[in-house]
Amino acid sequence: MSVRARPHFCSLNAAVDILSGKWKILLLWELLEQPRRFGELRRLVPGIREKVLIQQLRELEADGVVARKAFDGTQLRVEYSLTEAGVALTRALEPLTQWSLEHVVRR
Amino acid sequence: MSVRARPHFCSLNAAVDILSGKWKILLLWELLEQPRRFGELRRLVPGIREKVLIQQLRELEADGVVARKAFDGTQLRVEYSLTEAGVALTRALEPLTQWSLEHVVRR
Repeated sequence: MSVRARPHFCSLNAAVDILSGKWKILLLWELLEQPRRFGELRRLVPGIREKVLIQQLRELEADGVVARKAFDGTQLRVEYSLTEAGVALTRALEPLTQWSLEHVVRR
Repeated sequence: MSVRARPHFCSLNAAVDILSGKWKILLLWELLEQPRRFGELRRLVPGIREKVLIQQLRELEADGVVARKAFDGTQLRVEYSLTEAGVALTRALEPLTQWSLEHVVRR
């Protein structure tokens, strides 16, 4: 591996790993708009099973791109939002989105 | 799924699928520098098994980001290069590389 390529390879692979998971990109996209509660995310992502949503949110949280905030009250309220790294990641995806709209959709 | 998010979700997922595969990003990176022969790619990507390199090059070719060119002669010579879509994809990865160098490496 050319020395020049190695840092790109390791870090890019790590970023692609963070994004790999059927619903993660969509979850990031929905959270980019505004913080969301669990139930909202379930409605916005039809087809996702509760167990999978819990798992993928946990993984995004562990990867530091999503934050989980619990609010006390008569009923426990939990809100998910993008961290600063999460917002930056979703922005960094825009050129890739543009590429795929130009190259993937037309085929 | 908010209507606004749907095209992003489908195309971005397709782009992430194209990139998923342990060595693909590195292969794109090495081919961005110049067209390469099979043997060169094997030397530049230590650790990759021949069968996996063949498979991942085939998948990148099927996805339209790598071109394979055979040259007749005393010995069959095969050269791999990025297509126009392949160059554009590798460029579109640069913000993601920057993000991962800032956010993934430092953790």
